Amino acid sequence: MTESELIERYFLSQQSSSGIVLGIGDDAAVLDIPENKQLVVSTDTLVSNVHFFGKDKAEDIGYKALAVNLSDMAAMAAEPKWFTLSLTMPKLDEAWLNSFSTGFFQLANQYQVELIGGDLSLGPLSISITIHGLVDKGSFISRGGARVGDAIYVTGTLGDAGAAIELRSKSLDDSARDYFLDRLLKPSPRIELALALQEYVNSMIDISDGLVQDLDHILHASQVGATVLTNMIPMSNTLKTSATEEEAISLALSAGDDYELCFTADASYETLLNEQATMNNCMLTQIGTIDNSNQLKLLNQDGTEVILDKKGFQHFL
Amino acid sequence: MTESELIERYFLSQQSSSGIVLGIGDDAAVLDIPENKQLVVSTDTLVSNVHFFGKDKAEDIGYKALAVNLSDMAAMAAEPKWFTLSLTMPKLDEAWLNSFSTGFFQLANQYQVELIGGDLSLGPLSISITIHGLVDKGSFISRGGARVGDAIYVTGTLGDAGAAIELRSKSLDDSARDYFLDRLLKPSPRIELALALQEYVNSMIDISDGLVQDLDHILHASQVGATVLTNMIPMSNTLKTSATEEEAISLALSAGDDYELCFTADASYETLLNEQATMNNCMLTQIGTIDNSNQLKLLNQDGTEVILDKKGFQHFL
Repeated sequence: MTESELIERYFLSQQSSSGIVLGIGDDAAVLDIPENKQLVVSTDTLVSNVHFFGKDKAEDIGYKALAVNLSDMAAMAAEPKWFTLSLTMPKLDEAWLNSFSTGFFQLANQYQVELIGGDLSLGPLSISITIHGLVDKGSFISRGGARVGDAIYVTGTLGDAGAAIELRSKSLDDSARDYFLDRLLKPSPRIELALALQEYVNSMIDISDGLVQDLDHILHASQVGATVLTNMIPMSNTLKTSATEEEAISLALSAGDDYELCFTADASYETLLNEQATMNNCMLTQIGTIDNSNQLKLLNQDGTEVILDKKGFQHFL
Repeated sequence: MTESELIERYFLSQQSSSGIVLGIGDDAAVLDIPENKQLVVSTDTLVSNVHFFGKDKAEDIGYKALAVNLSDMAAMAAEPKWFTLSLTMPKLDEAWLNSFSTGFFQLANQYQVELIGGDLSLGPLSISITIHGLVDKGSFISRGGARVGDAIYVTGTLGDAGAAIELRSKSLDDSARDYFLDRLLKPSPRIELALALQEYVNSMIDISDGLVQDLDHILHASQVGATVLTNMIPMSNTLKTSATEEEAISLALSAGDDYELCFTADASYETLLNEQATMNNCMLTQIGTIDNSNQLKLLNQDGTEVILDKKGFQHFL
């Protein structure tokens, strides 16, 4: 089967999203960008046995490859529209391909994002997606807009995805293990909430490398500091009951792969933000405040400072 | 060293191309697309020991990874503007990274395309680039516009890149071996000529999988046929003297990786096209004619039909 035939069989989507002048099947796709919009572009690659296990279900891999890219659109408060897919796989396995494409089309259809091109290669399993979204001109949210006095928020609960990896060797009960694995493999991109909050938020990032490291990116880009109260950090009951208090807080602070959002907003918007979170069925928690200290201070409930030995996921340390 | 520090050291470009509202260093890049333009997007991935040899110079790998993507922009007659880079490498090797980035910045600076984002991962060596270009609204050239009576042209010479691989075991002299390797590793994206010819060309594709297979894509998309005279197909003197006539023509017809352009245009433009080719310092050869036969016929000089057993590079046959 040729590459073109494989693409037609597994990757041609049924829907037709707006703006596509020329889709899959030429040397490139051609897109119309509305006059009042800016284009938002991000790339994320998942490599087998680094970002997922080769034995994970193909459907889960397909889902996650798109989810982490959608999460980057959420972090910019951009509406995701189109994506390219570069898939490298060790052999032609049509059952695997079918399952993989089912996984990402599930998410693609949910968010009405459309595959516009890409390529298939033979080689070690790896998936690279480049996602394209739109924002009203000047309305994107960068990491650099945090202001002194802003409240710091995170969506959902933190540390669950990290627990799937870090607590593997522990004697977890099956439901806890399944819960953590589901959080690792099926992160929920917070698109709806990000779009709803866009006008209130000053800075935003998605938590892919761990809260401490990612919040640090906001502080660095915004040239501000922050104080975070660790006892405010939202953790699932499953995490709290599966790990020691110290393990749990360490995972919530430093483990990657949660793909929740961390953002800052003027403290006066608290009620408004919580209303939007409720309407979008997403947990929202204030965990601290932006200050002018130029550093990130993590405080225990008794006011003592938390000393971390690991700042978050780093490929190249 | 963190991923951010590596990116700052090796991948922040000095130049600042137009349209970049937010570049490297946030969750996504933000771009301004001019009102009268359409966006053209393409992705190509190079995998070690499939698209290049792991022992190739990093500089050549960096050059080629961008060149093949620029070639896709040329095939659409689009002006390349911005690209994302996803680089997966087995270990952190700063000398390799330095050389790799030198290779692609050489080409990026030449064509004034700017790196706007991407990611670095640990894993088997692989490079995925997504390139973005602009065309005046409606002025892109697709594969689907060939008309009966159009002349079929190719740029440059064909078969040289294939010779670097297929003739490896032959006792070539050093200068021939170097020439073929250079053609394989350093294809010239035909951007300038493609932009100059845009208003005359009806359909276009870049020859990445071999002339027969790629011209077939034009015929299929345009629902036409073609007759190609094999003795008209341009081949380098090095190829003609390094291989038998049969080997040479087989490489020129079927070997991939040349990244020359194949296009069709009304026969009345012949003089004009040749003038543009001369001005852009690019060889241009008419190799055949589009007809209504719905098939590709390859004719020898004596009028007999060429029978091919291999249609071009296929990953999944």
